[in-house]
Amino acid sequence: MGERLDTTWKGIAARVDAALDRYLPDEETPPGELHRAMRYSIFAGGKRLRPVLCVLSGRLAGARLRELLPPACALEMVHTYSLIHDDLPAMDDDDFRRGKPTSHKVFGEALAILAGDALLTLAFETITRHTKDGRIAARLCEELSRGAGSEGMVGGQVFDILSEGEKPNARLVEEIHRRKTAALIRASTRMGAIAACASDRELRDLTRFGETLGLLFQITDDLLDEVGEEGKMGKRLRKDAGRGKQTYPRVHGLAASAKLAGELAARCESILDRYGGRAKVLRSIPRFILKRTS
Amino acid sequence: MGERLDTTWKGIAARVDAALDRYLPDEETPPGELHRAMRYSIFAGGKRLRPVLCVLSGRLAGARLRELLPPACALEMVHTYSLIHDDLPAMDDDDFRRGKPTSHKVFGEALAILAGDALLTLAFETITRHTKDGRIAARLCEELSRGAGSEGMVGGQVFDILSEGEKPNARLVEEIHRRKTAALIRASTRMGAIAACASDRELRDLTRFGETLGLLFQITDDLLDEVGEEGKMGKRLRKDAGRGKQTYPRVHGLAASAKLAGELAARCESILDRYGGRAKVLRSIPRFILKRTS
Repeated sequence: MGERLDTTWKGIAARVDAALDRYLPDEETPPGELHRAMRYSIFAGGKRLRPVLCVLSGRLAGARLRELLPPACALEMVHTYSLIHDDLPAMDDDDFRRGKPTSHKVFGEALAILAGDALLTLAFETITRHTKDGRIAARLCEELSRGAGSEGMVGGQVFDILSEGEKPNARLVEEIHRRKTAALIRASTRMGAIAACASDRELRDLTRFGETLGLLFQITDDLLDEVGEEGKMGKRLRKDAGRGKQTYPRVHGLAASAKLAGELAARCESILDRYGGRAKVLRSIPRFILKRTS
Repeated sequence: MGERLDTTWKGIAARVDAALDRYLPDEETPPGELHRAMRYSIFAGGKRLRPVLCVLSGRLAGARLRELLPPACALEMVHTYSLIHDDLPAMDDDDFRRGKPTSHKVFGEALAILAGDALLTLAFETITRHTKDGRIAARLCEELSRGAGSEGMVGGQVFDILSEGEKPNARLVEEIHRRKTAALIRASTRMGAIAACASDRELRDLTRFGETLGLLFQITDDLLDEVGEEGKMGKRLRKDAGRGKQTYPRVHGLAASAKLAGELAARCESILDRYGGRAKVLRSIPRFILKRTS
């Protein structure tokens, strides 16, 4: 019964990787080319932030790892599909991500679109096939679809595209970030709580933590685009300004953005104060994101 | 309590249209441009075959209309997303569908990709938000994701693309059709049965009916591409041969394909024999498909 779990980020990411390998059809399963494309992007070196948040949130609220791996992996599938589609020529037109050629550069545009579609679909299949309690599975699917849908992540991507070239605007940049990145990060902590049948208070705290962390993450992303090193990031930088993207640094300046990031990290930590040592690893994540260089 | 329902195809389609209108965010909800694009394709004149199959199958197995509208509409959202993505320049590159410009011609490629993504996501949200019993919602999501995923509809699309220009091949054409079209039509009758908590025998019969009808539908689609009228179909025809697509007529010839279609329609009907008059409308669908001209 006793479940020993290495609860470091690295330890959880390793369990998530093993589960993703089980959940994704192997390259021998027809159509092999499609499954190769899905695996190529899933195993392209992602940091597994969303699954780690889901697992740590769920553990804090009392769930077992095996109950958390299906929603955790579903989140990574949705995140990966969004990157594949974002990188397409019709969207951000990026040739590299994490230092590797993007999906459409390797497999062609048609297969990249379909690999993204298949990963999004597989996310829901993974939750429903591998969650014993159907009522919990349904709640997880609802949470994921809201976070990923037209009023969440996809909606944020649309705002992002349509507002390119517009004058930097504080309200708009917040709107974009709240949807584009924060909606799925918020869904990550909430899905952990839902899988754990968390109390109302736990769910509320984990929701606020996820929301705040999501904004923090996007601000550091904007900052890294301005001041990061391309070698470390593995992708083209300094492109937001060139495209007239709505970013925090463009609206508020570098110094104010960095200050805001620090404040958000502190707010994240204080939300978890009441959980003491049990929340230690989860509580360390905002600082980690604040200091990230890639 | 008594539910009066016009169970003709047209009557059910009208109820489905009204439900789709409720389930889709309106054009005022931000981002309005995305919701406009989603609505444009959903209300572009589709025949609602999959929702009608879901509703009639579910009614046959004893469900109420209100329990069937969420899965029925989810099926139409998945079908519509697949058309939007199939029409993209990187895929089949079609400018017209049902006599109207395709999504990317009206909204641009980026928004067409995202409208497809959002419709696929909304399908799962619709089922989970509007199905009372979470266990049934989870089973519906699982069925939909299997039918639509990498070993179902999306997988069929990949086979279709990768085998273009290959020598016509009976095994391959069957493999493509079983996935590309039949998988989602099979899911349609099964989802009706699942929503109704059908008996094992009902589920088995409706599965076989859906599978057989799916093959019939694709064969008539292939035939219409060869001998249909562009005016009626509202899209470019005679393109399968030009692209070296794997189709029934190319493999077996027109006469043998038409004969097979007739046999499949008869097989569909006989599967429903034991249900007598209760199955009257569902039993009429294979003949309707056999005779369709658009």
